Amino acid sequence: MKLNCDLGESFGVWKMGMDEAVMPLIDQANIACGFHASDPLTMLKTVELACKHNVEIGAHPAYPDLVGFGRRSMACSADELKALIWYQMGALNSICEAFGTHIQYVKPHGAMNNDMMKSTEMLKTIMEAVARHEGVALMLPVSMAHADHNAMANDIGLPIIFEAFADRAYTDEGQLVSRAIEGSVYHEPAKVIAQAESFAHRSGVRSINDHWLDLPVDSLCIHGDNEASIAVVKAIRDAIGKQL
Amino acid sequence: MKLNCDLGESFGVWKMGMDEAVMPLIDQANIACGFHASDPLTMLKTVELACKHNVEIGAHPAYPDLVGFGRRSMACSADELKALIWYQMGALNSICEAFGTHIQYVKPHGAMNNDMMKSTEMLKTIMEAVARHEGVALMLPVSMAHADHNAMANDIGLPIIFEAFADRAYTDEGQLVSRAIEGSVYHEPAKVIAQAESFAHRSGVRSINDHWLDLPVDSLCIHGDNEASIAVVKAIRDAIGKQL
Amino acid sequence: MKLNCDLGESFGVWKMGMDEAVMPLIDQANIACGFHASDPLTMLKTVELACKHNVEIGAHPAYPDLVGFGRRSMACSADELKALIWYQMGALNSICEAFGTHIQYVKPHGAMNNDMMKSTEMLKTIMEAVARHEGVALMLPVSMAHADHNAMANDIGLPIIFEAFADRAYTDEGQLVSRAIEGSVYHEPAKVIAQAESFAHRSGVRSINDHWLDLPVDSLCIHGDNEASIAVVKAIRDAIGKQL
Amino acid sequence: MKLNCDLGESFGVWKMGMDEAVMPLIDQANIACGFHASDPLTMLKTVELACKHNVEIGAHPAYPDLVGFGRRSMACSADELKALIWYQMGALNSICEAFGTHIQYVKPHGAMNNDMMKSTEMLKTIMEAVARHEGVALMLPVSMAHADHNAMANDIGLPIIFEAFADRAYTDEGQLVSRAIEGSVYHEPAKVIAQAESFAHRSGVRSINDHWLDLPVDSLCIHGDNEASIAVVKAIRDAIGKQL
Repeated sequence: MKLNCDLGESFGVWKMGMDEAVMPLIDQANIACGFHASDPLTMLKTVELACKHNVEIGAHPAYPDLVGFGRRSMACSADELKALIWYQMGALNSICEAFGTHIQYVKPHGAMNNDMMKSTEMLKTIMEAVARHEGVALMLPVSMAHADHNAMANDIGLPIIFEAFADRAYTDEGQLVSRAIEGSVYHEPAKVIAQAESFAHRSGVRSINDHWLDLPVDSLCIHGDNEASIAVVKAIRDAIGKQL
Repeated sequence: MKLNCDLGESFGVWKMGMDEAVMPLIDQANIACGFHASDPLTMLKTVELACKHNVEIGAHPAYPDLVGFGRRSMACSADELKALIWYQMGALNSICEAFGTHIQYVKPHGAMNNDMMKSTEMLKTIMEAVARHEGVALMLPVSMAHADHNAMANDIGLPIIFEAFADRAYTDEGQLVSRAIEGSVYHEPAKVIAQAESFAHRSGVRSINDHWLDLPVDSLCIHGDNEASIAVVKAIRDAIGKQL
Repeated sequence: MKLNCDLGESFGVWKMGMDEAVMPLIDQANIACGFHASDPLTMLKTVELACKHNVEIGAHPAYPDLVGFGRRSMACSADELKALIWYQMGALNSICEAFGTHIQYVKPHGAMNNDMMKSTEMLKTIMEAVARHEGVALMLPVSMAHADHNAMANDIGLPIIFEAFADRAYTDEGQLVSRAIEGSVYHEPAKVIAQAESFAHRSGVRSINDHWLDLPVDSLCIHGDNEASIAVVKAIRDAIGKQL
Repeated sequence: MKLNCDLGESFGVWKMGMDEAVMPLIDQANIACGFHASDPLTMLKTVELACKHNVEIGAHPAYPDLVGFGRRSMACSADELKALIWYQMGALNSICEAFGTHIQYVKPHGAMNNDMMKSTEMLKTIMEAVARHEGVALMLPVSMAHADHNAMANDIGLPIIFEAFADRAYTDEGQLVSRAIEGSVYHEPAKVIAQAESFAHRSGVRSINDHWLDLPVDSLCIHGDNEASIAVVKAIRDAIGKQL
């Protein structure tokens, strides 16, 4: 199981996240592409940092909502959605190529990710968009629909990376419990680490109703926001036996 | 001698230019990339139109100044400049790849183009940026410095496309006479067509002071703004013997 | 009954609408404030034009979505919504004051207007926001709920301007029939002019199901997009007895 | 002598500065207006905070360059410059009015401020713009040209607030020594505090060449970026005898 992190989320003079501290601890960097965060120069620096630590690079495209950090749904036609994804993944990939590397996957950000998981039609549109770029995978949240999602992707030759969260409760359908619900987000490191271990060693997790869910996870999404979350990432690495 | 045109300059609901009328008449489309004009969906439609007419595609990157249409100088470090170019050329190229094609060159827009021609250091930075993407050329205004520019580009393996203008007066140094000066822009079609012929058949032009300038031109920049400019393009095609 | 028009919707170099032709024909100009269209310089020119023709000025605030022209819903907290409205109305009013005038009302644009009419809570928030600026009215679509809306506004001392549309079919509830439905938008000038007369002379309109609706209308929204719509405005003026 | 500080410079989810710590220590808050930093909701919260501490509010308008934080010159016509200032000061003032207060002055930000001090024509344009809003002052850097600047302002009935910096070296002309020059910025608190005292108690300062400059200062610009700068502000207050 790999570790991935959303980063490169600074914008102009505004800094966000501890990218330098977390980059050495992860396998996959989901890099913002200028629509919810980042700008060309920040992307350049983030790609440079990822290359230095041999971290795989993924594009993290979003709706065009900088002030809202891409967290608001915005109605888009299928063509607009495809164009948004191609534009952002291409912008990042071009910077990667200047450093001798390339993007390996696309992970939609924020509201675009949520909307994609609520609409099979939208998921299909995104899959088709990414599949036009041969060899690039789509990273999407694992759920009990993972076999269906795999089948949809296989049909068009799209590689899939399933990701899970160690700090979020899961419903019986294998979806993230809404943040609005008490107990949906784990704040105790021990609980987070235990869930990471469960995904890594038992390929599944207990739901919020205490049902066992088989969930095949390729990558665990961790956070590099502050010292505390960096410490949790280190503890997760120890717990699942990843060495630096 | 090819014909190139700046297009794809609509933005959201705002339309600009007669792209559908001019696309069949040109060889090379300089497509805006979202920083001075355009947006991902407009780029998608413009690439689609270019593909339909087998027109070569070039990226037309600019400073981040939508409200000023990229016509204002903006101080950028070398790294920011490279990042701006890579970002924009990659965004467009990714959309091209979704349509089975790719960008063939980069032509800086507006103030970025002007600034590049005034600073050898900036020109060198842009050449290095484009050269990182193998096979992609830089389109730049031809001038009496063309041999030097060619040498600079050859040193780093960068293909060059020299462009000229049929509707602008040239100084003795082979530079465009400032728009602020009376007589710098030709409005009579006959004069424009004659200058196009001069570039095409005699590889040069008479300067504003009536000196002959040898200027090797690969591509002539024409305009698709309105009916009158479209008519001029057709007349130029006839005059230089280009058939549809 | 007054005539109002959305205008000042150009942006940077991009032109939209025939503001110079329509301004002499209207009583109230709903001027874009830079979030769905316009920019400070365009606003300055639009205010200048309105002053020249003694047209009342209203602010036309929108969600922050330039590329989508403010036509997409965007989730906003009550505080964000208030801040969006205060910011945009104040920006326009300041330009008005430089010309010796001031805004007289606020009319939310596009998706913000639609969302406001679907949510009493949101309408209340917007009413409270506008009411903080004494003497400024809220322009909102008239519907069969007009008495309720009037009462809500009276409670906080907010003047109300009810607007109607001559080119749109109305439901039995006095709401606009969705554009998605056949027959919702009238394209024949005769039908548009007849509905304008009905609002002006009979204070109501027949619904799409042919029921009579009493609807007190203060202002009719007309369009200045093109020659045809300008001609319709002139015909409406004649029909309802407005002289220039 | 009052103390002023640039603040309200967060943007969306990105935080900047220690506004809550510095607000109680200052007399005048220069609040960003959305063009180089801030957004409507951030402005609302900043105005609320200023009101809580009875701090005077000034608008801090800038060129439209969010990614560059308004630190780059951008060519503007006189009309565009006026429109930029009116737009931003009005947007902020409207939010102030919702809280029962109003802006008292305008202080151009970053490159707009620098450009204004290099061009008498631009300074005049800005003075005329601000003077259209009766009662609102212009805050500008004090220099040996202060009498001329005062006369220009008096001619059009514009109140002036002269500001100075305690942490910057001054040239013999009473201008800030360029940051590019060694020794132009003071990092030792003792030196900063001494210069603050000099402005407060002796109405002048020694230049970098050790010449005495008479400079009448109405307000000293201090910084609230971090713990260290907050500590310096407290020390300045003690040194110049300001009590909380």
